[in-house]
Amino acid sequence: MADTPLERIDEIVAAAVRAAEALAETTPAQRAGWLEATAERIERAGDELVALAARETHLPEQPRLRGELARTVFQLRLFAEVLADGEFLRATIDHADPSWPMGPRPDIRRSVVPMGPVLVFTASNFPLALSVAGHDTAAALAAGCPVIVKAHPGHPELSARTRDVLVSALAEAGAPEGTFEIIYGVEAGTTALRHPDIRAAAFTGSVPGGRALFDIANARPRPIPFYGELGSLNPVVVTAGAVEARGEQIAQGFAGSFTLGAGQFCTKPGLLLLPVGHGLEQQLVNAVAAVPEQRMLNDRIAAGYRTGVSVLREQAGITRLVSPDADPADTGFRPTLLSVRARDFLGDREVLDRECFGPASVIIEYDGEDELRAVLEGLEPGLTATVHAEESEYEQVRTLLPLLTRLAGRLLWNGWPTGITLSWAQQHGGPYPATTAPQFTSMGAAAIERFLRPVAWQDFPDALLPAALREANPWQLPRRVDGKR
Amino acid sequence: MADTPLERIDEIVAAAVRAAEALAETTPAQRAGWLEATAERIERAGDELVALAARETHLPEQPRLRGELARTVFQLRLFAEVLADGEFLRATIDHADPSWPMGPRPDIRRSVVPMGPVLVFTASNFPLALSVAGHDTAAALAAGCPVIVKAHPGHPELSARTRDVLVSALAEAGAPEGTFEIIYGVEAGTTALRHPDIRAAAFTGSVPGGRALFDIANARPRPIPFYGELGSLNPVVVTAGAVEARGEQIAQGFAGSFTLGAGQFCTKPGLLLLPVGHGLEQQLVNAVAAVPEQRMLNDRIAAGYRTGVSVLREQAGITRLVSPDADPADTGFRPTLLSVRARDFLGDREVLDRECFGPASVIIEYDGEDELRAVLEGLEPGLTATVHAEESEYEQVRTLLPLLTRLAGRLLWNGWPTGITLSWAQQHGGPYPATTAPQFTSMGAAAIERFLRPVAWQDFPDALLPAALREANPWQLPRRVDGKR
Repeated sequence: MADTPLERIDEIVAAAVRAAEALAETTPAQRAGWLEATAERIERAGDELVALAARETHLPEQPRLRGELARTVFQLRLFAEVLADGEFLRATIDHADPSWPMGPRPDIRRSVVPMGPVLVFTASNFPLALSVAGHDTAAALAAGCPVIVKAHPGHPELSARTRDVLVSALAEAGAPEGTFEIIYGVEAGTTALRHPDIRAAAFTGSVPGGRALFDIANARPRPIPFYGELGSLNPVVVTAGAVEARGEQIAQGFAGSFTLGAGQFCTKPGLLLLPVGHGLEQQLVNAVAAVPEQRMLNDRIAAGYRTGVSVLREQAGITRLVSPDADPADTGFRPTLLSVRARDFLGDREVLDRECFGPASVIIEYDGEDELRAVLEGLEPGLTATVHAEESEYEQVRTLLPLLTRLAGRLLWNGWPTGITLSWAQQHGGPYPATTAPQFTSMGAAAIERFLRPVAWQDFPDALLPAALREANPWQLPRRVDGKR
Repeated sequence: MADTPLERIDEIVAAAVRAAEALAETTPAQRAGWLEATAERIERAGDELVALAARETHLPEQPRLRGELARTVFQLRLFAEVLADGEFLRATIDHADPSWPMGPRPDIRRSVVPMGPVLVFTASNFPLALSVAGHDTAAALAAGCPVIVKAHPGHPELSARTRDVLVSALAEAGAPEGTFEIIYGVEAGTTALRHPDIRAAAFTGSVPGGRALFDIANARPRPIPFYGELGSLNPVVVTAGAVEARGEQIAQGFAGSFTLGAGQFCTKPGLLLLPVGHGLEQQLVNAVAAVPEQRMLNDRIAAGYRTGVSVLREQAGITRLVSPDADPADTGFRPTLLSVRARDFLGDREVLDRECFGPASVIIEYDGEDELRAVLEGLEPGLTATVHAEESEYEQVRTLLPLLTRLAGRLLWNGWPTGITLSWAQQHGGPYPATTAPQFTSMGAAAIERFLRPVAWQDFPDALLPAALREANPWQLPRRVDGKR
């Protein structure tokens, strides 16, 4: 796909600005209708989209791409539900109160409005669910923001085709022209990110790539919110009790999780913390050796992975539990599993405390709780942190939880961080470098909040208030009135 | 007050980190108790604090500083109410669901946790309400975050004394040591802002100062949320109908609002848009001339104002309606009122479309609705936008509202933007340069959200969940369970 000529960016953004004006006047119910129509059209185009995705990304159709298609359709419908629910509008009304303790209060009412045109940088590893008609697009459209997607170069034909399905679904459903467009090329993306009429941006990808865009967004004469979901180590802590009770099952589960999708998930468990003397080496080696060869998304990612693994396995104190030769001529990869003692990790964590995108993971063997705490205390924050433990160990785990909470946006108990569900309670985020905006989630119902901003109306006549704040509550919203829910 | 030695910063932050660990384990009810105790102690120390404030800032005790004291105490109590209410925890529970449409769902529960140590840069213009025991401090403590305040050099003695009252109130109420501390000096502030254990920062002040700190926060190896409330022009649109119905009253209200507190409010109306031929010149001149001389907060701000006004009044097309000589030897200022035709403003808005902190404002005379729209379309976003209009003009105003909404975080009808109330529905924010984070408010109940981040717990045993998410709902919180409020 040819790069979008830079002179086209102004036209595309101008169309989005016009669309934003129209979108700001639409009702949540209208937008829910668009999302439902889009979900249906994506579903109907499923065979074609999945075939294109398989060709461009090397991901298997079953169960992976079919599952991702279902997820993509589900996301669009989830946001239609969020719109129908109405709580996202955060409608709050304080009537005038002459006896308000800090002094007479005017009538003041607060809700949220769409931010305006949003730029979305799509991900390579979810060509459907985090791409053109993906989660960020669904959340921004739900919020009432036009979307310009910077297509990922890893799946250009799929992106173009998804764009056509999306644009025609939106048009048929009645969305204004300019509500959605796609652009191609790095320079087109950064040019759009600098455009004064872009009001927010979202990104899913690597730490260096996300940081570079975050820096551009912040260096604008008028900076804008930049929601980057960058990288994560996703440490998994296993207690002695858990090893004893179900060591074999943990070895299997871990091998399955870190190699799922060739380890190309931001939630891949990159560190497994096991007590010294766990005795699971053979089970781990067997479980990992049973994983079939997998192709990676594209040559650039494969090359990055080769470099990453070769650096990792040269670190001081590393034991190579499973360390296949990564033949550069070979397109399929077998997973790599390394092991290191906590004291060596603590001695030089520069390389080990960093995400390696692909089917590799590192076991850290800790000798007692102090060493475990020392490892956790120094880790980079991330998206998830997991504990495997037994009921008899609750008190010990309780003392670790504050540490793990500081490290991550999602904590898991006796599970694996890959395979994230989408629901009202989901949280996919965390302190940098997990994301550039730890106050938000990039997945789940609350992801809509990223594209809304609050506005208050003071002493406005009812006829000029947004429907969400009119006295008669025409949309039957849940509201807070005079401090009472 | 001597600058805090840089080697002390590490110790102060380390104490805040220890306090953060303890704070994360406290209940909202405990923190509400601390805020109430602090409010009472500030109230009791009121005479002394007001006297210090009057001496250091030249602000009059009555009604200004007494009102600000009441506001400061009220804020602390408002956040105690927010804590008692519990909705700020956003407790959301999705039980495991094997038939969830996108695939079997684990049990997942979401709430918010405190971010950790917060750095607050205090404002010069509200020595009590936006300073040491001010709004940002109250919101961050309510969230469960330790606070380090960078004192404003404009009121050092008051800052030190307020710190002592606050620290002893917190200690007596049972807050952990290190929950609050103060630092002095520009370099101490920037050193703290760069400290890896500071998790968020808040600032109220000028655009250049705020932008410099925003840039530092974003340039950190691990960037943190930076909530800057910077500057605002606060345009007021007056329609022909409003001029006709109550021109005199508008002239009086405007003069009162832009000169209130010597114009040293971020909500000062800096632009008044009047229809050509309004005929209010004499009323405006009379109303402004009746405002007594006022001293400004300090010499630096007075000097900045002198420069600002002298540049403003030299702009092409400017008419000086009220333009007193600002004698550098004089400590009191009389207000300045300038006027310009919209076409001249549109021709060269570089200087006029910028906040001038102090008792000056500019009237823009617009010739018809198209010219009014052209002026509004090009304005910098801000904190507020106001309309004065009549009931017969609703349809005309309705077409302006989308424009005004894009410009501001608070819209006012037939009122004046100064004198902001605090309540559940208040919104004090807006797109840059109003703030660096338009998704949030720096005032009102929702300001607590700036210092919280969401965390999800997946498949956790009830005994290890935070109380907010336990099945039995021990805190009786409002919660969303399986999608239902």
